[in-house]
Amino acid sequence: MSKTCKAVVFDAYGTLFDVHSVVTLADGLFPGRGAELSRLWRAKQLEYTWLRSLMGSYADFAAVTRAALEFACAALNLPLGPETADNLMAAYDKLALFPDARNALAALSGLKLAILSNGSRTMLDPLVRNAKLNSVLTAVISVDEVRIYKPDPRVYRLAPNSLDVAKEETAFVSSNYWDAAGAKNFGFRVFWINRAGVEPDRLENAPDIVLTGLTGLAGHLV
Amino acid sequence: MSKTCKAVVFDAYGTLFDVHSVVTLADGLFPGRGAELSRLWRAKQLEYTWLRSLMGSYADFAAVTRAALEFACAALNLPLGPETADNLMAAYDKLALFPDARNALAALSGLKLAILSNGSRTMLDPLVRNAKLNSVLTAVISVDEVRIYKPDPRVYRLAPNSLDVAKEETAFVSSNYWDAAGAKNFGFRVFWINRAGVEPDRLENAPDIVLTGLTGLAGHLV
Repeated sequence: MSKTCKAVVFDAYGTLFDVHSVVTLADGLFPGRGAELSRLWRAKQLEYTWLRSLMGSYADFAAVTRAALEFACAALNLPLGPETADNLMAAYDKLALFPDARNALAALSGLKLAILSNGSRTMLDPLVRNAKLNSVLTAVISVDEVRIYKPDPRVYRLAPNSLDVAKEETAFVSSNYWDAAGAKNFGFRVFWINRAGVEPDRLENAPDIVLTGLTGLAGHLV
Repeated sequence: MSKTCKAVVFDAYGTLFDVHSVVTLADGLFPGRGAELSRLWRAKQLEYTWLRSLMGSYADFAAVTRAALEFACAALNLPLGPETADNLMAAYDKLALFPDARNALAALSGLKLAILSNGSRTMLDPLVRNAKLNSVLTAVISVDEVRIYKPDPRVYRLAPNSLDVAKEETAFVSSNYWDAAGAKNFGFRVFWINRAGVEPDRLENAPDIVLTGLTGLAGHLV
């Protein structure tokens, strides 16, 4: 029914890498308010990527992430000095892989593997290096190359171009439903990793397969 | 310093029209949960407009608003039958003008006045008719004409084209900061109506003037 899979492309934040350590740090800095701050920070981070993409006023993900942090702290009346901001931003460079990620990648080792992320190069490079993924990945692709964010199709187009595969031969893996929908809209075979059992968004372009983690991935692809 | 103002273009939902009656109805249908439902419904409504615009998969605002309602109820474990959904959607057609809107419009009567809204024609027509604004407005413009949502510049372009004025001669009025930023990015003279005293978003293209309501508008424009 579907073509042979030659490449698997992963979203980074929340899919391969666990952002929970940022929540923990935020709660250490603002006791009892970490979860609330992290939620608003993340919501604004995404909102700003979409708004800037539509306005044609791209700023890289580090700038957008910091702006969203500043908004979230101001809106929640949390005092954010430059040092606290730096600490929270630095946590993004040291995120841990999800426990199931390394084995899932190893099980796919016959295929071309890549990351396609909103993250800018200066955010992705330390992340991949710290996790020792350089030898595992064929490519680490940032939206920065096209200066627009997911789910614009020009972003997803970067992966088949960079890996020299057809989009029909490419699997895309994301824990963000809207990212999975964008990837499906582009034409990938799409896996939505719904770790937390959240409600799917009411958008078109539903993912092909829903998994609760990365472990089952190879069974569908190898 | 700035050119003479010849036209004033208003956002509809939350700017001229008060959406609070929807919150009240939601709380009547789901006692104690109305505010929470309305917040998530509104957040998802906007999110879907941005995502669909970026994916190039436009659906009109009635469809997007209904999809967002269905998501919000499912995510909050609130039972939503078709009749309840119809009731909540119908509330959007009967929104009241803010108390300061009619006088503010009257004070600007020498200028071309218009609405530029995400709302589809079938949502905007009853709204304007119920509020008896037809004779006051030169144009009621829907994004439906270009099948993409705010803050894409193609949306704002509709207003000067439709009113036959230059964008530099056009004032734009919105209570949504991101909409004000999009309008400023396009090139209008922009008023942000910050009724609730919320935090401005950390985006570029700050509005020219911030007001707490519509009353002071004419003092800046006539």
